[in-house]
Parts: sequence; structure tokens; C-alpha cells
Amino acid sequence: MNFRVHVRILPRRGLLDPQGQAVEHALKALNFEGAGNVHVGKAIEIDVAASDEAAARATAKAMCDKLLANPVTEDYQIEVEAR
Amino acid sequence: MNFRVHVRILPRRGLLDPQGQAVEHALKALNFEGAGNVHVGKAIEIDVAASDEAAARATAKAMCDKLLANPVTEDYQIEVEAR
Repeated sequence: MNFRVHVRILPRRGLLDPQGQAVEHALKALNFEGAGNVHVGKAIEIDVAASDEAAARATAKAMCDKLLANPVTEDYQIEVEAR
Repeated sequence: MNFRVHVRILPRRGLLDPQGQAVEHALKALNFEGAGNVHVGKAIEIDVAASDEAAARATAKAMCDKLLANPVTEDYQIEVEAR
């Protein structure tokens, strides 16, 4: 079966996020007053062939741990969608 | 009310995505054989103060159109979560 995996990788809370701060300042300069706590990271989409959803999620987790995310500075979330 | 907005910005389908291709090659080099159709973009999280979920979504859409996404080359998806 094929699954579409959506991975969201963001800087770990408490670590410096200069890109998030830059976006927050730019939003305020555009008069989006109610915006705050902005964080910027990576969104990755991958088609994964796996026997079931749990296997697809495990594969995606392995991809994050081995390649996609920096385990020291980043946290990731995985969403799996059947195709 | 405060809402947590998750924005996912990805290269428009059909446009060149060299970063996605690089990640796909790297995954195959790591023996993730079942992976394909990889796309890499930006994940942005923003706290938005708004009267209801529809207003928060409209604000996030305006942020994407005015600042966050490039309307020529990128597509975005917005998820709104009440806090």
C-alpha cells in the first residue's frame, strides 16, 4: 500500500529561532497585530510504500531520525495519510 | 481567543523541486527503497488572536498571500487549532 507522509520539522522549543523572529517582525510591520510566537521550520512530503499505516509511520520516523531532522535542535511530527 | 495556526508551504506541483530531489536521492542511498515523490517546503507555526476559527483562518490566509508564500511558485495549506 502507498501512504502519503507529511513531516513537520521545527526548532526545539527554547532554542533560538531567528527565522521565526524575522517572520514575526515582518508580520507586525504588515499590521498583523494578533500574531505571535512564530516558528519556522521544514515541511516534507514523502510517498512511502508500506504494509500498513503503522509500518509507514515507523519508516517515516526512521527517515527523520537518520536524515531529515537534527535530533539535537529539532522536533518533528509525522502525519500519515492513506492514498 | 487564541488559535495555533500551522501553515505548510510547498513548491507548486510541476515546478522544479531540487531540494525534494536531493532528499529523495539521500533516502534511497540510505536504503529507504519505498520512498518517492519527495517535496520539501516550509512549515510555519503562528499564534493568532481572533474572535473565532474562521477569522483565524482568514488572517492566516492573508498572511500567506501577503508575506509567507510566493503565490507564483508555492501552494499552502492552513490548519487551525484552538488553544
